[in-house]
Amino acid sequence: MNNPLLVVGSVALDTVETPFGRKEEVLGGSASYFSLAASYFHPVRVVAIVGTDFGPTHRKPFRDRPIDLEGLVVASGKTFRWGGVYGQDPNERETLFTELNVFEHFRPELPPGYRDSQFIFLGNIDPALQSIVLDQVPDRRFVGCDTMNFWIQSQIDSLKKTMARVDALLINDQELYQLAGKRNLLRAAGIVLGSGPRLVVVKRGEFGAVLVSGDQRFLLPALALDKVQDPTGAGDSFAGGFMGHLARTGELGWETFRQAVIWGTVMASFCVESFSVDGLIGLGEETIRKRYQELRDSTRWGREEPI
Amino acid sequence: MNNPLLVVGSVALDTVETPFGRKEEVLGGSASYFSLAASYFHPVRVVAIVGTDFGPTHRKPFRDRPIDLEGLVVASGKTFRWGGVYGQDPNERETLFTELNVFEHFRPELPPGYRDSQFIFLGNIDPALQSIVLDQVPDRRFVGCDTMNFWIQSQIDSLKKTMARVDALLINDQELYQLAGKRNLLRAAGIVLGSGPRLVVVKRGEFGAVLVSGDQRFLLPALALDKVQDPTGAGDSFAGGFMGHLARTGELGWETFRQAVIWGTVMASFCVESFSVDGLIGLGEETIRKRYQELRDSTRWGREEPI
Repeated sequence: MNNPLLVVGSVALDTVETPFGRKEEVLGGSASYFSLAASYFHPVRVVAIVGTDFGPTHRKPFRDRPIDLEGLVVASGKTFRWGGVYGQDPNERETLFTELNVFEHFRPELPPGYRDSQFIFLGNIDPALQSIVLDQVPDRRFVGCDTMNFWIQSQIDSLKKTMARVDALLINDQELYQLAGKRNLLRAAGIVLGSGPRLVVVKRGEFGAVLVSGDQRFLLPALALDKVQDPTGAGDSFAGGFMGHLARTGELGWETFRQAVIWGTVMASFCVESFSVDGLIGLGEETIRKRYQELRDSTRWGREEPI
Repeated sequence: MNNPLLVVGSVALDTVETPFGRKEEVLGGSASYFSLAASYFHPVRVVAIVGTDFGPTHRKPFRDRPIDLEGLVVASGKTFRWGGVYGQDPNERETLFTELNVFEHFRPELPPGYRDSQFIFLGNIDPALQSIVLDQVPDRRFVGCDTMNFWIQSQIDSLKKTMARVDALLINDQELYQLAGKRNLLRAAGIVLGSGPRLVVVKRGEFGAVLVSGDQRFLLPALALDKVQDPTGAGDSFAGGFMGHLARTGELGWETFRQAVIWGTVMASFCVESFSVDGLIGLGEETIRKRYQELRDSTRWGREEPI
């Protein structure tokens, strides 16, 4: 399976403040986190837009990995910028500003060489744009899709159309409740499963993730980490590990989906330990394996003692 | 091991409102939830106080189980009452009223027959009273202890003295952060472990629990439930399953501690499905085993697919 994994999403310059410091105009955006995390599993193709201020330094992390930037359009204007601040609770953040810039007129058009993509991740962008991407990948085998409260509120009809065409919805717990109108994970997931996707992956931040498909479910805690410097991008890094594992194995069964959740959790743990994408840079295979083993050890039931 | 498990805590009449309904003056209190949950594993002795309004109907759930009420003092006056309301988020509740009544002058004195107790759970009461109980159980082998924000704020010195004498602290995540002055689970747990207990069990409500001891940790999600009617007592039911398993096996090693967290999680899941203690009444062994298996299946890693 050499067909690379395709991601469409944002590439941004983020200004982030957390209790551990402040970073200005550092690499961010869903497609950045996703592609870097996924690249440890499978080659990635990126569809996104940046401005003329996006320079070689910004490109370097991608260039060092098997990430194809042919679909990264450079438009005249400035790159998308986002600013946010986190308090002590890493699950809660406040957006300070969003400057769409070149992203405002983004209309994803895939390079011809990308149109044979089979594994696709639709990052958190306007659901109408997500649909436009799907129109351009007739050979798709598995589509993962993220969304957020903004689209649920303002573009629900369009979002529902996209959802009907995807295989997996990856979504935060609070946004799942908002989307489904139910404050119960299983019931809310059931409603989403009735609207198209065969899988729902509920992201719970520091508490982990839950995979639901039909009557099956898989619950996994996040790693307990000594240091969480910057939670930005955790969800996209999770998605990168998840989709990367699927694209690598080429398998689409319950066992593989569960493992994909594990790999997503592993990649998210690297992301949050450092600011920006720094935690996803230069990871060795041994480092990733060790983290996997750490998660294994800390969730293992061990010797069972029946009642 | 026929030495029963000892619990000291509150027996209360609760008035609870959740999105699923409202119940007035129903059986509640930490010692009630704890003893009923633990009774499925091991006989329990209860030390608590009630008023003369606590009648045979209130006693029946205990009477139907191997729960010894010799230590349940009846004082002239009214039973402790608590009222609270839950919104859509089961992890958040508002206390509407607390009427201490006979609990105000509670000074736990163990019946002579209780003084040989080896496994002890100190429910969430004034840490000075928790200490008084410990003075009366010279043969103690393992002491679990709960506490809450109120004691952390108002009785921190007394709480620290109690903590130095217990084996396990069972505590909510937010309260752990408050107690340790650190918003990181591992670091906060490390601080608590430096102050006496060999185990910290961090309760995360619907997200599950984390056990920390030295460098070892065990993370377990809570069961995903179709119906969560009333979260009151979940933590005490968890403690009941946890301590009940330890008392039953009489073993104090890492493998047994992990299993105890699993049994605690199982018992908490029954608690929250119904109002008051109703979910802990009349459980068959088969029902409990089935729930254990459900948790096992929904957290099992399955076939591992290495990177």
